[in-house]
Amino acid sequence: MKAAVKVTTDVKAYMRELGSQARTAARLLARAETAVKNAALAETAAEIERRADALLEANRKDLEAGKAQGFDPAFLDRLELNPARVRLMAEGLRQIAQLTDPIGEITGLAYRPTGIQVGRMRVPLGVIGIIYESRPNVTADAAGLCLKSGNAAILRGGSEAMHSNRAIAACIQAGLLQAGLPAEAVQVVDTTDRAAVGELITMKEFVDVIVPRGGKSLIERVSNEATIPVIKHLHGICHVYIDDKADLNKAVKIAFNAKCQRYAVCNAMETLLVARDIAERILPVLAEMYQEQDVELRGCERTRRLLPEIKAATEEDWQTEYEAPILSIRMVDDLDGAMDHIAKYGSQHTDSIVTEDITRARRFLREVDSSSVMVNASTRFADGFEYGLGAEIGISTDKLHARGPVGLEGLTSQKFVVIGDGHIRT
Amino acid sequence: MKAAVKVTTDVKAYMRELGSQARTAARLLARAETAVKNAALAETAAEIERRADALLEANRKDLEAGKAQGFDPAFLDRLELNPARVRLMAEGLRQIAQLTDPIGEITGLAYRPTGIQVGRMRVPLGVIGIIYESRPNVTADAAGLCLKSGNAAILRGGSEAMHSNRAIAACIQAGLLQAGLPAEAVQVVDTTDRAAVGELITMKEFVDVIVPRGGKSLIERVSNEATIPVIKHLHGICHVYIDDKADLNKAVKIAFNAKCQRYAVCNAMETLLVARDIAERILPVLAEMYQEQDVELRGCERTRRLLPEIKAATEEDWQTEYEAPILSIRMVDDLDGAMDHIAKYGSQHTDSIVTEDITRARRFLREVDSSSVMVNASTRFADGFEYGLGAEIGISTDKLHARGPVGLEGLTSQKFVVIGDGHIRT
Repeated sequence: MKAAVKVTTDVKAYMRELGSQARTAARLLARAETAVKNAALAETAAEIERRADALLEANRKDLEAGKAQGFDPAFLDRLELNPARVRLMAEGLRQIAQLTDPIGEITGLAYRPTGIQVGRMRVPLGVIGIIYESRPNVTADAAGLCLKSGNAAILRGGSEAMHSNRAIAACIQAGLLQAGLPAEAVQVVDTTDRAAVGELITMKEFVDVIVPRGGKSLIERVSNEATIPVIKHLHGICHVYIDDKADLNKAVKIAFNAKCQRYAVCNAMETLLVARDIAERILPVLAEMYQEQDVELRGCERTRRLLPEIKAATEEDWQTEYEAPILSIRMVDDLDGAMDHIAKYGSQHTDSIVTEDITRARRFLREVDSSSVMVNASTRFADGFEYGLGAEIGISTDKLHARGPVGLEGLTSQKFVVIGDGHIRT
Repeated sequence: MKAAVKVTTDVKAYMRELGSQARTAARLLARAETAVKNAALAETAAEIERRADALLEANRKDLEAGKAQGFDPAFLDRLELNPARVRLMAEGLRQIAQLTDPIGEITGLAYRPTGIQVGRMRVPLGVIGIIYESRPNVTADAAGLCLKSGNAAILRGGSEAMHSNRAIAACIQAGLLQAGLPAEAVQVVDTTDRAAVGELITMKEFVDVIVPRGGKSLIERVSNEATIPVIKHLHGICHVYIDDKADLNKAVKIAFNAKCQRYAVCNAMETLLVARDIAERILPVLAEMYQEQDVELRGCERTRRLLPEIKAATEEDWQTEYEAPILSIRMVDDLDGAMDHIAKYGSQHTDSIVTEDITRARRFLREVDSSSVMVNASTRFADGFEYGLGAEIGISTDKLHARGPVGLEGLTSQKFVVIGDGHIRT
């Protein structure tokens, strides 16, 4: 294996060297055949299993350092690798190998009146910078998705997971070389110097897109400082609107599932909107179910007339992503009231209407400006696997390039192909 | 018509007010029916014809001021409106009305194993900021494309065309109102203060994408300073590679057309690459044709052995977009030599191979990383109209979001739609 770039005190030069190597590797990767990319994924999976003990040993160093620094148990849990998690990493790579290769597909190749054929070919973006936090499995997962989509990757994990990430990167680079691909196709930034991130998100000539994965503060910082485009989602303030023409059974199931199936996820409901004319029939039922799960309820004034025992919701509540067993509830007059609330307070992530009325469903789908809009389904479905993308590198609440769950296709672009037979423009 | 926002000395406040109004208008426009948008386009076209005299009068003021400032004739020509150009503006809007409305189209709606249906709906981007220079017809053209694709537009033209742009904007706003759409759907920045551009390209909450149209220095400045995504192309250094398996007749036709059909356009060839084994047969023929057109030739050393009368090309020549009757010529060993040159010096705009060899054509299409890759066709075909997009707001040499000629679809995004029947995630 080619020696990795040496970290010097000059972080800028180090990062630019990584970038330059990634750029060269990206050109080779863009033309790599599917079978070769799949072989690299399979070889990496095998390396991960073969070196499981070494991975766990490296992870132990990170865990010990993390404990010594007094990180909380939830943080240490995210950082931890165990034999089952190592197997899952390898399994994830084998699943990525099974996915259809998006690269090179030509669509819409049609003759124009001039006689030329014009179509589009799907191509990689080039070099992708991934910035993430404690979970070391992201190293394998993100590398696998970039590789399959023909992109070189520069991975910058959390400093607390450095030993783990280094060990995983060694497996990936061994897998790449065994398949005949350049080891520089996947590089892990091997310095804890924070200036490395600053360089990564601004070196336009070497990096085509940044994908930050982690908490809000990370994503906010990256997207404020990056001069390279960022695929991101910042907030997930998801709504369920129960229309007065809803089927009550469906409404109860969906509103309960959207909040309680998991709390600390971006596609959980944070605010429930209920049409005035159905509120009296449904809110007491739902309130009891939530309270059994110890979900704290906060309501608008009209809601509290029906549920006087709950706290008052403040203006801040409507703008808050709790990611916790807390739910704010607002009574609205009708569909327009619900859509106004979503336009004002939503985060353009995922919003759902429960109704049997097709005209209202049709309006909600068209008029609500979110990355996922749903009818009679739980917001928890907003997910690359549930949508059939086969994998997910993240969820985008932006509009440009990628919107909603981002799978392999989100890591690609399309170029025009033109085929003639000596055609010239007149 | 609602009074336009007053320009005060506080440019920032003025721009934010425009932005806020655009945001509100965008929500209405996103849900506007196709017939309503088409009516606004038709009404605007009629207004432009009805007010032709006023438009020409306003334009005369700009032209006189331009002459007084000593602008050159080419500049004044771009600035000038005449009865024919006014008719073309109106005609352009009627053509946009004829295009298929991309908004609201749902694709791929399919059942998932869980029973939910998942598909994608095409939606507007929101608010588009267009920054352009002297040609006043861009005001009508850009406004029309934004309107048809359901986006609100904020237009910032050159200060030298302010009277013309104001008069055209009045026609557009009258057309919008007659169709029942908000006049704020298209707003022209009514100040020549340069700080307005700085505000436009950074007010993220109000503007979703910036499209600069004009010279390189404008595009460079906008894209360096913008914190909002920019759809742009900076350089058009296009290549034609004549392979040694080329049909000589096709090669001559294409190489001549790509350079000489028009000089000052981004898709004209700037560098001709010729395979060593065919150079002796084709270069003297081509050189004579170019010299008849007074095209200045600059060649590499090997080229000059065949054409000793021409100038030597420097390293700078390979990196230069002449947009003029100048052509640099390089002899390469083979396809790989040509692709290496393009990878090193190209601008990822448009590159073409002339060959009868399908395997080499296949490699060129896959491996050359440009927004348009061509076989046996002139680079001059790289154009939204030639590609059948029906219109073109610009050409993008970026990879994210839009690549190559950008038509209506490039001004849209896709959201996920999910339809269930009470489905929850388990």
